[in-house]
Amino acid sequence: MSHSYQPQQNKRLEDKSIRARMLISCPDKAGIVAAVSQFLYEQGANIVQSDQYTMDPEGGMFFMRIEFDLQDLEQRLPTLQEDFTRVADRFSMRWSIFRAARRKRIAVLVSKEDHCLLELLWQWQSGDLDAEISMVISNHDDMRGIVESFGIPYHHVPVTAETKAEAEQKQRELIAGKVDLIVLARYMQIVSPKFIEQYHNRIINIHHSFLPAFVGGKPYQQAYNRGVKLIGATAHYVTEELDGGPIIEQDIQRVTHRDEVNELKRIGRHIERIVLARAVKWHVEDRLLVYQNKTVAFV
Amino acid sequence: MSHSYQPQQNKRLEDKSIRARMLISCPDKAGIVAAVSQFLYEQGANIVQSDQYTMDPEGGMFFMRIEFDLQDLEQRLPTLQEDFTRVADRFSMRWSIFRAARRKRIAVLVSKEDHCLLELLWQWQSGDLDAEISMVISNHDDMRGIVESFGIPYHHVPVTAETKAEAEQKQRELIAGKVDLIVLARYMQIVSPKFIEQYHNRIINIHHSFLPAFVGGKPYQQAYNRGVKLIGATAHYVTEELDGGPIIEQDIQRVTHRDEVNELKRIGRHIERIVLARAVKWHVEDRLLVYQNKTVAFV
Amino acid sequence: MSHSYQPQQNKRLEDKSIRARMLISCPDKAGIVAAVSQFLYEQGANIVQSDQYTMDPEGGMFFMRIEFDLQDLEQRLPTLQEDFTRVADRFSMRWSIFRAARRKRIAVLVSKEDHCLLELLWQWQSGDLDAEISMVISNHDDMRGIVESFGIPYHHVPVTAETKAEAEQKQRELIAGKVDLIVLARYMQIVSPKFIEQYHNRIINIHHSFLPAFVGGKPYQQAYNRGVKLIGATAHYVTEELDGGPIIEQDIQRVTHRDEVNELKRIGRHIERIVLARAVKWHVEDRLLVYQNKTVAFV
Amino acid sequence: MSHSYQPQQNKRLEDKSIRARMLISCPDKAGIVAAVSQFLYEQGANIVQSDQYTMDPEGGMFFMRIEFDLQDLEQRLPTLQEDFTRVADRFSMRWSIFRAARRKRIAVLVSKEDHCLLELLWQWQSGDLDAEISMVISNHDDMRGIVESFGIPYHHVPVTAETKAEAEQKQRELIAGKVDLIVLARYMQIVSPKFIEQYHNRIINIHHSFLPAFVGGKPYQQAYNRGVKLIGATAHYVTEELDGGPIIEQDIQRVTHRDEVNELKRIGRHIERIVLARAVKWHVEDRLLVYQNKTVAFV
Repeated sequence: MSHSYQPQQNKRLEDKSIRARMLISCPDKAGIVAAVSQFLYEQGANIVQSDQYTMDPEGGMFFMRIEFDLQDLEQRLPTLQEDFTRVADRFSMRWSIFRAARRKRIAVLVSKEDHCLLELLWQWQSGDLDAEISMVISNHDDMRGIVESFGIPYHHVPVTAETKAEAEQKQRELIAGKVDLIVLARYMQIVSPKFIEQYHNRIINIHHSFLPAFVGGKPYQQAYNRGVKLIGATAHYVTEELDGGPIIEQDIQRVTHRDEVNELKRIGRHIERIVLARAVKWHVEDRLLVYQNKTVAFV
Repeated sequence: MSHSYQPQQNKRLEDKSIRARMLISCPDKAGIVAAVSQFLYEQGANIVQSDQYTMDPEGGMFFMRIEFDLQDLEQRLPTLQEDFTRVADRFSMRWSIFRAARRKRIAVLVSKEDHCLLELLWQWQSGDLDAEISMVISNHDDMRGIVESFGIPYHHVPVTAETKAEAEQKQRELIAGKVDLIVLARYMQIVSPKFIEQYHNRIINIHHSFLPAFVGGKPYQQAYNRGVKLIGATAHYVTEELDGGPIIEQDIQRVTHRDEVNELKRIGRHIERIVLARAVKWHVEDRLLVYQNKTVAFV
Repeated sequence: MSHSYQPQQNKRLEDKSIRARMLISCPDKAGIVAAVSQFLYEQGANIVQSDQYTMDPEGGMFFMRIEFDLQDLEQRLPTLQEDFTRVADRFSMRWSIFRAARRKRIAVLVSKEDHCLLELLWQWQSGDLDAEISMVISNHDDMRGIVESFGIPYHHVPVTAETKAEAEQKQRELIAGKVDLIVLARYMQIVSPKFIEQYHNRIINIHHSFLPAFVGGKPYQQAYNRGVKLIGATAHYVTEELDGGPIIEQDIQRVTHRDEVNELKRIGRHIERIVLARAVKWHVEDRLLVYQNKTVAFV
Repeated sequence: MSHSYQPQQNKRLEDKSIRARMLISCPDKAGIVAAVSQFLYEQGANIVQSDQYTMDPEGGMFFMRIEFDLQDLEQRLPTLQEDFTRVADRFSMRWSIFRAARRKRIAVLVSKEDHCLLELLWQWQSGDLDAEISMVISNHDDMRGIVESFGIPYHHVPVTAETKAEAEQKQRELIAGKVDLIVLARYMQIVSPKFIEQYHNRIINIHHSFLPAFVGGKPYQQAYNRGVKLIGATAHYVTEELDGGPIIEQDIQRVTHRDEVNELKRIGRHIERIVLARAVKWHVEDRLLVYQNKTVAFV
């Protein structure tokens, strides 16, 4: 793979420099949409996409995602954010505004299976994944060649039972300040609670089953033993509870009695890479909100 | 089937009497969302769901669907509509407001195949289809028993090559003033341009193929001859062009070389009834806008 | 629904009277296919469909399903079966031969939810389900009207905590000698081990989740709480272990954060009826073999 | 990508050297299965998988695929084939036997879009595609780097309106004697009738629509204009009729009114690569038979 492989332009967003995305969550109350849209209108912004969800019309939570265009966005954003606090305070909002032009930086952690990593690399180089892959970290050195051929730094951080804490410390140093999202692309090591806490709702894992079925190890063997007729994969944010974090995306494929464990794994690899790539895409496009161990996915 | 079969309460909408749905389309322009949401806020309405779509950020069309709750809706709606004209005029809107409690009235036209009709009847009696089935009209008398057992009037209007115009006249008299939507549930007769014009975007047909593949007659035979690996069905609004109207919904199912024409028909019946029922549900819930032979489906 | 509703002819099998289906399972060994097909050829039978599956080429189990046509089948079957014992003994086969013309008799057990029952009734009357529905038994009287309108006997057997054993005794008397398959079509009562044993691999249940996720009660509530992005249903043979029997068929549908429990139930009803109907169809067409808590499904 | 990337062992076929696959088509007649299975049994072969299909029980065509294991296959195959002619002649069979260990050699033709090629390369290096990719030929030089990094020869054969015939001549020389299958992986040039004839049923193309909808150029634009709710892709053998050859595999994905042409293309790329890879896999595993412009796919 030559170094001439550069991500193609995403043709959808002709002028990404003026596009922003706003995420809001707050207790529901009349007047939120009016206040936010009036505010943006007065700022001269044009709303190009808006999604909202009210958990329960009376007294529930309200979630909103707005894409808007604003001339001179980069210069004007600090003031706009400052001004918005008045609206936000009125409704006790948690909120963020992201510039579309500021691509999220991803660290991919991987072990020996390459399919999820390759999918992310391809989607990145084709422009489908609008992010930066800042680095790949692995406890093995196998994928250095392919990763470096994309011009992406590759860090080999071996992990053994004894060096576990040390290895994680090394990873955290590599990542510190350089990464917005961590993707566990079939990374077969447990991540420490401390690490999880630091990157709260910013670590995405792919589990190779349709959760909550087959939590834990060897899910394809478990699926085979149970004789299921569909197998699946689940992308979720990592929390302290093993395979218990907020589910972002799931998909399945049909299998039959003919498919023994290795065939389930082969079929599963295809589901895993698609599901993980979708979840990462949604995260970097600011389409995901987390509330009480569930995701609100504006996709 | 006893007459005690009454549609169950739709449990989702605890108080449907205060719920309204607003559909808007207009040229895109900054400030629309602000103006509409501000208007509703001032009226005391609470927006519970809002969807929008801009065809093209610059100079395209803007489409919006809003669900809102308003106390004393029935009494206050006329004034609200009058007041809204100021907002609407400012943005050259085409718009409508529907009360959720005012269920749309459906006439189902059917020939000899009963699966699509039965699906609508079941979804209606289970409360999944929030509409009134005002009458069933058929060019055969076969389904009178089942239809009348649901307490729904059944009209047998025979159609022959000679009596075609007359029969349609009869149908139109039966329907006049009593029906908001006409569903062709495998009704195997061509409807006249005049009829179509009168019920513009209010006649839904189910075509037994994945349009635009296999336009016209005997689509399953055509599909068999071509050796396709998927068969489908398409629900669309009826226009003068045969099988050419705006597509509302489509779905498919996998088939194999083993499936000869009768088996394709059997599989196809399941797709047809699901696809038609979805399209009808979306129409009666005011989720569909038509623009230039396409539907915008807020589902 | 008038009593003129009779199952339509299944057009696929022009002459069902000569069609037989043979199911075989035995330890794998060279020569099985040769011996069986040679035997049928010598009997004058024509194999029209044949499926086989070997669990493991060396030393595993072998499963086979053959459809064949034989003139004067009904008269000749007893002799053919007797003659076949020589082949069967040579390979230690478990085997059965079923005449396609001898439609399996079904008892449907149902509580208050009608969607699964209605689907079976519709598939039966349309000829898609090639079986006899001999009776419907319910612990409620609600569906008597619709069932009797199809000309099918309806038995109301109330069940309370006190009368449980008695009620089951009543059910078994109704069924005894009249039924080949029992379908629990959202029958919300536990069936006793004794009952299960008597109808081993002849009781099909529909569970309203993608097993083994959400075993037990209120699976849609469980699914909602976990925030899954797909919901499913599972048809399985009933064994003593709750929701633990051999899985026959599963399917899923995509849901979103917007779908609260009642909406999950609504979507789920569509999956349940489709999945259960498929499982029942496969059973009555002799397409299912059970081995070690798994099904081999020749579909 | 380092040169250490070698296809992984396919773990399913522990001893592929003794595995053969037999494809048969002939007019249906009693005794075929018996004759073939008896023959194989006498040769000492063990049937591990067998599929058959009869187009029409009376007087139709019969198709069969058998996988069998035979010790010393390579040495014994010539004799076995010679002996089988007696059976074959009796039933007027067209037949072939393929050794699983003799992997099919593929030439991939590609233009500028890389997704289909990348998918094939990944499936090849992961061992999922049990074939040899002998060469990649392109009318552009863009993908040389990635292809050569896999150790696969890359031939740049520019094509202009003037040099068309010449270019094809060059391609045919490159391929001659070295290739069993030609895959058009989004190769945007028309192949000549002469070329097609020479590689009859051995050229697979991916068309970026659900055929027969949207034959010809710009199918995603056509799909957008028609407002379809699903888009698809079709893998088919190439015949003289443009996009008219026997369909091998199709799949679709749901789209909405929000997806303009570029988004349809992005979604479509995922379908295309999956569908093409499946078709190629089935071909190299000898799972496809062609009869009267349709495929019989034993998958």
